[in-house]
Amino acid sequence: MTQIRFALAQIDTCVGALDANAAKVLDYARRADAGHAQVVVFPEMTLTGYPIEDLALRRTFRRAAWDKANELAAGLKREGLGDLYVVVGTVGTDHATDKPYNRLVVLHDGVVWAGYDKHFLPNYGVFDEFRIFKAGDRSVVLDVDGARLGVAICEDIWQDGGPVAELAGRDIDALVTINGSPYEEGKTDVRLDLAKRRAAEVEAPLIYLNQVGGQDDLVFDGGSFVVDADGTLLARAPMFMEDLSFWTLDTTTVHQAKAEVAPALDPDEEVYTACVLGLKDYMAKNRFTGVTLGLSGGIDSALVAAMAADAVGGENVHGISMPSMYSSDGSKDDAADLAANIGAHYDVQPIEPLFTAFQSQLDLDGVAAENLQARIRGVIVMAYSNSKGLLAVATGNKSELACGYSTIYGDAVGGYAPIKDLLKTRVWELSRWRNRAAAAGVGIGGLRIVGNEAGAPGTPLKDGVMIPVASIEKAPSAELRPGQKDSDSLPEYELLDKVLAAYIEHAHGRADLLADGFDERTVDTVMRLVDRAEWKRRQYPLGPKVTALAFGRDRRLPITNAFRE
Amino acid sequence: MTQIRFALAQIDTCVGALDANAAKVLDYARRADAGHAQVVVFPEMTLTGYPIEDLALRRTFRRAAWDKANELAAGLKREGLGDLYVVVGTVGTDHATDKPYNRLVVLHDGVVWAGYDKHFLPNYGVFDEFRIFKAGDRSVVLDVDGARLGVAICEDIWQDGGPVAELAGRDIDALVTINGSPYEEGKTDVRLDLAKRRAAEVEAPLIYLNQVGGQDDLVFDGGSFVVDADGTLLARAPMFMEDLSFWTLDTTTVHQAKAEVAPALDPDEEVYTACVLGLKDYMAKNRFTGVTLGLSGGIDSALVAAMAADAVGGENVHGISMPSMYSSDGSKDDAADLAANIGAHYDVQPIEPLFTAFQSQLDLDGVAAENLQARIRGVIVMAYSNSKGLLAVATGNKSELACGYSTIYGDAVGGYAPIKDLLKTRVWELSRWRNRAAAAGVGIGGLRIVGNEAGAPGTPLKDGVMIPVASIEKAPSAELRPGQKDSDSLPEYELLDKVLAAYIEHAHGRADLLADGFDERTVDTVMRLVDRAEWKRRQYPLGPKVTALAFGRDRRLPITNAFRE
Repeated sequence: MTQIRFALAQIDTCVGALDANAAKVLDYARRADAGHAQVVVFPEMTLTGYPIEDLALRRTFRRAAWDKANELAAGLKREGLGDLYVVVGTVGTDHATDKPYNRLVVLHDGVVWAGYDKHFLPNYGVFDEFRIFKAGDRSVVLDVDGARLGVAICEDIWQDGGPVAELAGRDIDALVTINGSPYEEGKTDVRLDLAKRRAAEVEAPLIYLNQVGGQDDLVFDGGSFVVDADGTLLARAPMFMEDLSFWTLDTTTVHQAKAEVAPALDPDEEVYTACVLGLKDYMAKNRFTGVTLGLSGGIDSALVAAMAADAVGGENVHGISMPSMYSSDGSKDDAADLAANIGAHYDVQPIEPLFTAFQSQLDLDGVAAENLQARIRGVIVMAYSNSKGLLAVATGNKSELACGYSTIYGDAVGGYAPIKDLLKTRVWELSRWRNRAAAAGVGIGGLRIVGNEAGAPGTPLKDGVMIPVASIEKAPSAELRPGQKDSDSLPEYELLDKVLAAYIEHAHGRADLLADGFDERTVDTVMRLVDRAEWKRRQYPLGPKVTALAFGRDRRLPITNAFRE
Repeated sequence: MTQIRFALAQIDTCVGALDANAAKVLDYARRADAGHAQVVVFPEMTLTGYPIEDLALRRTFRRAAWDKANELAAGLKREGLGDLYVVVGTVGTDHATDKPYNRLVVLHDGVVWAGYDKHFLPNYGVFDEFRIFKAGDRSVVLDVDGARLGVAICEDIWQDGGPVAELAGRDIDALVTINGSPYEEGKTDVRLDLAKRRAAEVEAPLIYLNQVGGQDDLVFDGGSFVVDADGTLLARAPMFMEDLSFWTLDTTTVHQAKAEVAPALDPDEEVYTACVLGLKDYMAKNRFTGVTLGLSGGIDSALVAAMAADAVGGENVHGISMPSMYSSDGSKDDAADLAANIGAHYDVQPIEPLFTAFQSQLDLDGVAAENLQARIRGVIVMAYSNSKGLLAVATGNKSELACGYSTIYGDAVGGYAPIKDLLKTRVWELSRWRNRAAAAGVGIGGLRIVGNEAGAPGTPLKDGVMIPVASIEKAPSAELRPGQKDSDSLPEYELLDKVLAAYIEHAHGRADLLADGFDERTVDTVMRLVDRAEWKRRQYPLGPKVTALAFGRDRRLPITNAFRE
């Protein structure tokens, strides 16, 4: 009987941080060895971070990554970890063409022992790998203490054919896959179904090791797992946290033993946590310790502030109330209550004197005057950002951004937009979920998330309330003119969000939308709003581009697109 | 003896504008027929415009393009043009996979007669075709009135192998290539050398038909040509203008007759004209008739205003002088002089009262106070844009943008940035060139450019001056604090621009830059500035993204790149 004990090292890497990533590999390798593992598996492009974009094209970087891999292999051996097989991802080079590879290597016995280059280079959605990397063209089977391990990298298992098809005939004992698979809602099941199919194809258990953490505009959710050839889920790591778990392969049996299986999360908890992790890691990796944002008393800024408090603590959140002559007393109270609930700094900066000063020179009316109010607020938020070294976060949601219901250089200012991928109805749902979690004792910072592995309850909230109920329940308004309501300009959000999902995410054309059962007037209104907003955004490509999540397909259309369906 | 008369229809298309593009094809086909052509050749993706990005993925659009091609073929026949072979580009569909093709078709005798699909799909630099299109896999030879014509699309001739290699053995009489090749300085010679090589490879003349005009962030320069198998330049159309020229192939001789060869442009004229055409077409295709910008009295805003006047006439340029307490009298005078010289609208909006109003609430100092001044100006420019329906243009040059010497949401506001790809030393050179051209009688609107095909002298300038000499010659200053000079923060531009070209455009690393002969202190200063500016820009991806030209390679690096060379 041959048993191979695997350690699944689900870690959060940082792009370009070769030293820090290598140090983390060494740390987890020690812990894997202490847990008697023979093989420890890390995520895709462990040493370099992922995705590295055009950094892969810089020769100096590739040389440094290669040196780091060798130094790490030597260091492992020096510490007595030379027997361990350490499976990491890094960048390689094809010396004939000087093009980079997305490469898996095994560090063993002091050397960089074996290499496999990713075959399928995704360049759809958020991926751009075909632009950067050269494709590998051979499959690899590793002999590890008598067991035959096939390997593959991420997209290799999403496409038919290629290395998995080749491995199917080669009598492997397990298929080890290293992944950098960004979070999307519902993707957990999709990945698992895919892995079951590939495990059946190679007639062996499949190890799916995924990266965790926020990186630039993406969130990687972890949730690494092992699935048997018959489809049984044998082991699963938690989502959104770094983790080291163990699973043992027995090459003499067709039914493998189970290890620990982390339970699935509630859908609202999952999405909320993804948003918080995205913001937290964006700040950590860009060395920001605090955020600033405008607090209007509305639900969008309230939810973003709550997420920011969960990410970095309420004491690092600087909320600014910027009331105008059109702001209601209720809004001002709600903003103050929210700030108090999460323990944020809270300043009031009325914009009326500034608005009056501009108007005495410019004398604007209509939309220009409304935009002026939003832009004065943008200047104030950026002044806080510049003078206190805080990250400005934008509070726009997907519904209003899709419909152009925001002001560039105004409420759209910010380096990060945590809820850009949430439709308005989802903003309400997540706000209610966060209040329920608070009532159940999950205080600020109490989410199970990278950097807070214990998942402790966190700082308790006064009376268990986080987001004022009035912010959730009142009719949404931009408060840029007397009595203004979002519903003056937009369909009701319950309807609007359904049309937006069909039009944007499922690419339904006009005829499809009518066949979906939406009435003609609504369809034409929404299509007109979205097309015009896209056109404006392409003209001024300056709105919040950075997003926490890869929820929805973005349309990449030319600016001067004259085509109308 | 078989003679085939070709018409080279170098036209300016608009992305998505199927009706307008088809109407233009019909118009040029009539003129080709009137000139006794048997074949008329149009640029890549004529009917759809180019580049169409994700629009190609919309089935409704592909269906509309297909219908339009058939309707156009029928229309040509109805007008008695059925004998003409009309070579156009459009989008096709692979029905097995529902993926689009970048396709060349021939309209003849009332039908869409033959199809060729582009093999090589570029996805480097500004191109993203591999993401969108399916690659063709067969070469095509057209029999046209007894002559054998090979065809290829743009990138097909830039790569070895593929369709050109296949055509080499097939005894063709000419190779017809349709192109959407964006302007880069120096590319005219590169294209010609390449075409000579391919003509020799297929042992036949090569027709290179290029698109002309601005499209989104690109400028296509035209300059279509015919080159013989022995390398002789047989015909060449002018750059930056729509054009219909003729050339006759004689299949019975190895030495072809020459037609008209347009002379090469002066390098400064070429770059200046490219910038103007980019802005002019961006405005036309987005239906803007006027622009607004801040006029500081400095050279950057002066050059941009001159370009805008050349693009759309001085009467459609709205300059705003926004002096602060730190603005010199000379700067204010220079701004007023420039506006008068080009016949622009000119308003003065002092920012001191607004700055004072903000400061009474915010009490900022240092860089935050400097940024505040720039952002107040940004709000004013956008107020003009919103209230008068004008395109806001940003005036930043490549040197200051590369070094982060600008303010996001401040001087960086604008939907288009005409000189974003010009280093500061080039800004001075082009300003001097424009003044020389003005002295030689080239008034406003007098450039040879799309929409002004005659190349008339244009509206004369008072005393032949356009850009005040003081704006060109004075030491550059942002005037955000007393006595400030750019050289307080940056190396002198003559040196800085050389380092920037090496570091950014030629991707030289630190060791390379030292080997280039730059001193260590300068290299480290510039690398630190550029890396920090890139990092800021990636955090706030909101600066001027839209650019006239594809002059320099942009680095696409991850945001949280911790790697330092």
